[in-house]
Amino acid sequence: MTPGKTQRSVFFVSDRTGITAELLGKTLLTQFPGVEFHKRTLPFVDSVEKLQIAVAEINDCARQEGMRPVVFSTLIDEKLRTLIASAEALCIDLFADFISQLESELGQVSSHALGLSHGMGDELVYQKRMDAVNYTLLHDDGINTVNYDRAEVILVGVSRSGKTPTCLYLAMQYGIYAANYPLTPDDFSSQALPKSLMAHKAKLYGLTITAERLAKIRNERKPDSRYAALENCQSEIRAAENLLRQGHVPILDTTTMSVEEIAISILYGTGLIKRLKS
Amino acid sequence: MTPGKTQRSVFFVSDRTGITAELLGKTLLTQFPGVEFHKRTLPFVDSVEKLQIAVAEINDCARQEGMRPVVFSTLIDEKLRTLIASAEALCIDLFADFISQLESELGQVSSHALGLSHGMGDELVYQKRMDAVNYTLLHDDGINTVNYDRAEVILVGVSRSGKTPTCLYLAMQYGIYAANYPLTPDDFSSQALPKSLMAHKAKLYGLTITAERLAKIRNERKPDSRYAALENCQSEIRAAENLLRQGHVPILDTTTMSVEEIAISILYGTGLIKRLKS
Repeated sequence: MTPGKTQRSVFFVSDRTGITAELLGKTLLTQFPGVEFHKRTLPFVDSVEKLQIAVAEINDCARQEGMRPVVFSTLIDEKLRTLIASAEALCIDLFADFISQLESELGQVSSHALGLSHGMGDELVYQKRMDAVNYTLLHDDGINTVNYDRAEVILVGVSRSGKTPTCLYLAMQYGIYAANYPLTPDDFSSQALPKSLMAHKAKLYGLTITAERLAKIRNERKPDSRYAALENCQSEIRAAENLLRQGHVPILDTTTMSVEEIAISILYGTGLIKRLKS
Repeated sequence: MTPGKTQRSVFFVSDRTGITAELLGKTLLTQFPGVEFHKRTLPFVDSVEKLQIAVAEINDCARQEGMRPVVFSTLIDEKLRTLIASAEALCIDLFADFISQLESELGQVSSHALGLSHGMGDELVYQKRMDAVNYTLLHDDGINTVNYDRAEVILVGVSRSGKTPTCLYLAMQYGIYAANYPLTPDDFSSQALPKSLMAHKAKLYGLTITAERLAKIRNERKPDSRYAALENCQSEIRAAENLLRQGHVPILDTTTMSVEEIAISILYGTGLIKRLKS
């Protein structure tokens, strides 16, 4: 408990995983830094019985705290939506208003099918995502440079510039075949990017980072090593950026970016986003 | 273009990555299977100039198609929210109503800080996620059974039952140290789970799958192999389930589940969700 902050309980209630409710709900809550929120997610609430248990838990919470909780819900079934609205809480139904606006705009009644967004959905699309994860694992960290023909993007940068998690995120979320290649002192001694990379020049995307941030990240892995020393980071980054620039490879500075932000920037920077839309 | 389906254009407009807008927007759109949606995301729209370009693109689309598009937006800045509402579109502002409801409920004015949900956010939490991804990569597929002390969960099952993508998802999204161990014919010949696993019994979580589905997945990787043959899948699954049951390890059937659904089920099934809340 943080002194001076208001305490409020929050529930995310969903008929499926609750991922969407949490995501939008938490984004909204970040707008209230003066409140400390105690969050609970109730996923797979897909029957009247389960919903009644959820409402009982919410009402218990309201009684115990003497203050009604905030509930974010993503429930498709209308009966469940009516029931959750009866809870002793500020109930924010993330579907209600929007579904009716869309119905009148599109001139169609909604299907009321259960949340499709985090199920397997289109099996081919899902399979592509899982295949991409496997491809990325087999082409992580330059361990396999022969199958770059299938790569859709190849991230290039010094060790710990964010390549691996970004590749995995691109594969998992977007089904992108993402390989990555770490630039090491071996590469710096030659005057150009390795031939195995230059054969796929159009797919290359460079990641860079400030030396200070890189040294911090590397120090957590190998404290007080030459690998993590600031001067070494500086010289590796300088050499890597030179090679990338010389090869006319686009470069993204990841210093202050999350893996999600890096991934989206790459999707747009490479034009891969267009393939995803088709 | 699918014959007989209405065509409608959709834009997701965000001041950050657009992930939240896409997620909720797409969930809502899945409720209208009779309409074919052409989706475009406009991320990082964080200034009046960028917003004017976005509005121009939306209005162009409305003119060309003779029908106004649907716009889902997650914009924090009020000026930008007012501007997007002027576009020739059905504008669904995923923040507007909710922010004002929360303001009056919480008795606080919202901070109007830019979308924090997919930035680095709390650096320690973010670092934990990246560390967990690294841990998971080093403990994938039983390649390293010595560091199970640090594991928070160890998924156990036959090859291709969903262990690896689930571990990566748990690590990437929730910062969970997730290892996995593939049960192979070597394990089946003994009468119990390997000692390296049983030493961490409380962390074990079994994944199973129907033989038909497993054979299908394996056939895509190694067509017409003994590995993928239905009878072999049946006997591997039977042997694996026997070992898991004998070790009193909980078993989850992943046959019809997405990686997101498996991950959430494990978070709740193991009780790990409680650690995440604290």
